[in-house]
Amino acid sequence: MMSSETIAPVLIDGTWRPAREVGSFSATNPATGESLADVFPISAWADIDAALDAALSAHAEMRTMDPEGLAIFLRQYAEEIESQRDALCAVAALETGFPVSPRLRDVELPRTTNQLRQAADMVLDDAWRLPTIDAATNIRSVFESLGPVAVFGPNNFPFAYNSISGGDFASAIAVGCPVIAKAHPGYPATSRLLAECAKTAADATGMPAGIVQMVYGLAPVDGLTLVSDPRLGAVAFTGSRAAGLKLKAAADAVGKPIYLEMSSVNPVVLLPGALDEHFDTVVDELVTSALMGAGQFCTNPGLVFALRGETTDRLLKKIAERYDEAPCGTLLSENTQAALKHSIEVLETAGARVLSGGGPADREGFAWSNTLLQVNGGQFLGAPEVFQREAFGNATLVVVLDDADQWVDAITRCEGSLTGCIYSADDGSEDALYDQIAPALRLRVGRLLNDKMPTGVAVSPAMQHGGPFPASGHPHFTAVGFPASLRRFTMLASYDNVRAHRLPPVLQDPASRDASYA
Amino acid sequence: MMSSETIAPVLIDGTWRPAREVGSFSATNPATGESLADVFPISAWADIDAALDAALSAHAEMRTMDPEGLAIFLRQYAEEIESQRDALCAVAALETGFPVSPRLRDVELPRTTNQLRQAADMVLDDAWRLPTIDAATNIRSVFESLGPVAVFGPNNFPFAYNSISGGDFASAIAVGCPVIAKAHPGYPATSRLLAECAKTAADATGMPAGIVQMVYGLAPVDGLTLVSDPRLGAVAFTGSRAAGLKLKAAADAVGKPIYLEMSSVNPVVLLPGALDEHFDTVVDELVTSALMGAGQFCTNPGLVFALRGETTDRLLKKIAERYDEAPCGTLLSENTQAALKHSIEVLETAGARVLSGGGPADREGFAWSNTLLQVNGGQFLGAPEVFQREAFGNATLVVVLDDADQWVDAITRCEGSLTGCIYSADDGSEDALYDQIAPALRLRVGRLLNDKMPTGVAVSPAMQHGGPFPASGHPHFTAVGFPASLRRFTMLASYDNVRAHRLPPVLQDPASRDASYA
Repeated sequence: MMSSETIAPVLIDGTWRPAREVGSFSATNPATGESLADVFPISAWADIDAALDAALSAHAEMRTMDPEGLAIFLRQYAEEIESQRDALCAVAALETGFPVSPRLRDVELPRTTNQLRQAADMVLDDAWRLPTIDAATNIRSVFESLGPVAVFGPNNFPFAYNSISGGDFASAIAVGCPVIAKAHPGYPATSRLLAECAKTAADATGMPAGIVQMVYGLAPVDGLTLVSDPRLGAVAFTGSRAAGLKLKAAADAVGKPIYLEMSSVNPVVLLPGALDEHFDTVVDELVTSALMGAGQFCTNPGLVFALRGETTDRLLKKIAERYDEAPCGTLLSENTQAALKHSIEVLETAGARVLSGGGPADREGFAWSNTLLQVNGGQFLGAPEVFQREAFGNATLVVVLDDADQWVDAITRCEGSLTGCIYSADDGSEDALYDQIAPALRLRVGRLLNDKMPTGVAVSPAMQHGGPFPASGHPHFTAVGFPASLRRFTMLASYDNVRAHRLPPVLQDPASRDASYA
Repeated sequence: MMSSETIAPVLIDGTWRPAREVGSFSATNPATGESLADVFPISAWADIDAALDAALSAHAEMRTMDPEGLAIFLRQYAEEIESQRDALCAVAALETGFPVSPRLRDVELPRTTNQLRQAADMVLDDAWRLPTIDAATNIRSVFESLGPVAVFGPNNFPFAYNSISGGDFASAIAVGCPVIAKAHPGYPATSRLLAECAKTAADATGMPAGIVQMVYGLAPVDGLTLVSDPRLGAVAFTGSRAAGLKLKAAADAVGKPIYLEMSSVNPVVLLPGALDEHFDTVVDELVTSALMGAGQFCTNPGLVFALRGETTDRLLKKIAERYDEAPCGTLLSENTQAALKHSIEVLETAGARVLSGGGPADREGFAWSNTLLQVNGGQFLGAPEVFQREAFGNATLVVVLDDADQWVDAITRCEGSLTGCIYSADDGSEDALYDQIAPALRLRVGRLLNDKMPTGVAVSPAMQHGGPFPASGHPHFTAVGFPASLRRFTMLASYDNVRAHRLPPVLQDPASRDASYA
């Protein structure tokens, strides 16, 4: 049993071993603000260096082993997670404030094991490998694993985006990239338990020692050194824009592929006809989407556009009422609360009017009152960068446009977002307006929605959970959805006149292929 | 008729118009060193700004037009080029020093029109669009055009990589991205003639005015402003590492996709058995590949690895003889000559021994003597970055390894290259050694070759003309080969619950699709 005096070990090269640490930390129960007992290390560079060596060696093994082994490992890992369901949900609830049911047990954990199994199904699939044999020139190509992947997970999904179990992890493993996971400091005990499941599964299925490794923290400078290390193949990061941009700059400087999911305000366009036809439904969908999980989703609808008029006045009044009535959800950490407070202050200072909330929540733990803010179209167009500041949490900014001419102007001034929604009249009377707005919005978002709020990211083969900068680092790639999310961790590898027996099995002529893994 | 006093106009928004210029220049005949008569402008920002506006407007049109029109335009453009074959070859020969035959007329021009036609064939192909319909969630996705693309072409392919006619151009147009071409200053009159063909074809096929635009030069600071402009969708650059890295930093800072093809030394591994079996063939292939076009190919084999011994001594002696005997080709410019001289000096200063050439060529125009340099394995491993300095032109560095243990060490120290070659014994006696070297080389090159030199980039669907940094900016993408090269200029666009009649035709349910372009 680990006492609170013991610092948790790190998982490096197949072994739980004491960290070479430069500091330590404990997580906090955000529902109460109390510090939790377990102590976790901040690793010195020596840990990262050892992990990179082990990952490089694992990658070499993973390139020559039968890839079916990776699928077997991923499925076994999903089973291990399910066998630890109660313990995982209990510790994740403690560390994040998310309710065990339905959020953790009924939604996020099944989603996580589903992702691992879908990734397993992709291991042998040609859909991401795109093997191409040009018989005329004897040139062949296929997408192959890039090398070890460092994964930095976000604060808001302790299972489904966890660096040791989430979509980035599953995608990297499925293409044959070992993972060096940097656990999020918000839920280290959850991550530890997941890493134990992963190690158990890796050992049981005969994986290389360095396929899955985890540290809990590292000095910021070591993070930059890690992402630019020549042993690393790629980086996946989900989190704040500030942290993401620092890692991006370091990776870009050495030409290292880095996939980021950063800030996103997710504009929602409410055309007047949609409000006239479905007022109550729109209000209900918006409030539900905006306040769900205290608004702590990357697809939270943070920026709403509506047209000045009586209906919009009524909309604002109704949303404000609902925000006032609704309980204030738990925020993930003191930092989250401080950042939300600061963003609301910045918006107010720039001229946004508070229609609801705006101040501390009247409850224990980390929380803020459900906050509704408003600016007019002229204000927004005067300082679009400021009014697109992400207020991560339960805050929403509504832009009330002065006239229909401002729709396209306003959308054209929007930065890249993960999603963009347009609600319009069912009767077709707003189709012409839609046709003006949608092309501008289309180019600025990864996922365009009609008559639907953006929260809820289906693990669909057609999902784009990404989009133009700064929503992500490159709009060609998605963090969610198979097989597309796997492509991020591959390079296009061409084989020109390579002797038949030296080709990857998938590029061998059909006749030779059967015996490949014999 | 243009006199030498007249400054050539630029092609902006469908019109040849006087440049708002900040300077002017003339090209040089590299075979004689004499300045050519025509004068071309260096555009002020006002030209670029106007081109961006026109391109944005063209992009909006291209997104809604029947894409088949783009294919018709590309094919018409290929025909226009063919109709101007004699004039194009004459002017390109004058500006580049490349012979009309076989290089320009028989190889590069047909390659160029072939690329345009292959791109045309791709316009309606699903292979790059990858349309995905998830009926269960009503989410659909497809790869769509990113927006206007700025293309910067290299000095060494006046047709096939020209920013107004090459692979980047064809790929961008085929997916629906208008092109702003920055002509290379080495061959402005060639570029002008090509742009005239493009405009004729665009007018004849009813394309938007801003689909094809061209300027001849711009201030370096305006180049950085261009690649970070929000109106631009992506950048394609082929050229020097120094210039490429500056553009990359500017694009990366704003999250703009930039595709670069930069320096590459293209390591060639000559295992002893291959030399024993095929000495004369290997010498011949290496000398031919290394000196072809005065070595001015991005896939030029600049770095050769061989094992110390009598055969390698003989190899070096034989190559040196052949280099001494061979004529010294024309270098593309005074800059190319100066850069080659400087690189050879840097290699010599670092300890490389000159076995052949090393000094000025005894002929008129821009040229350098065919140069063979040698270092031993210890020297290379002591300063791998220095000895991987690209000496663009007719210079080759051979690394003579001390022992077989150094093979993997040396390859592991190689930076990313476009290509990597391994020659090994036919009798299988070197397969074990191959299996040690090839995995390390595989991860460092885009195209791996056996028993074959790297020059000659087939326009094959299986080609990877790209590779790990600094050969390119992202190893997932290729600059040559259809459909893969098209993917660079696309974003993954997801449609969630979007009303059926608003979906792109390719994502509509089959029943509704037929009438899409009616």
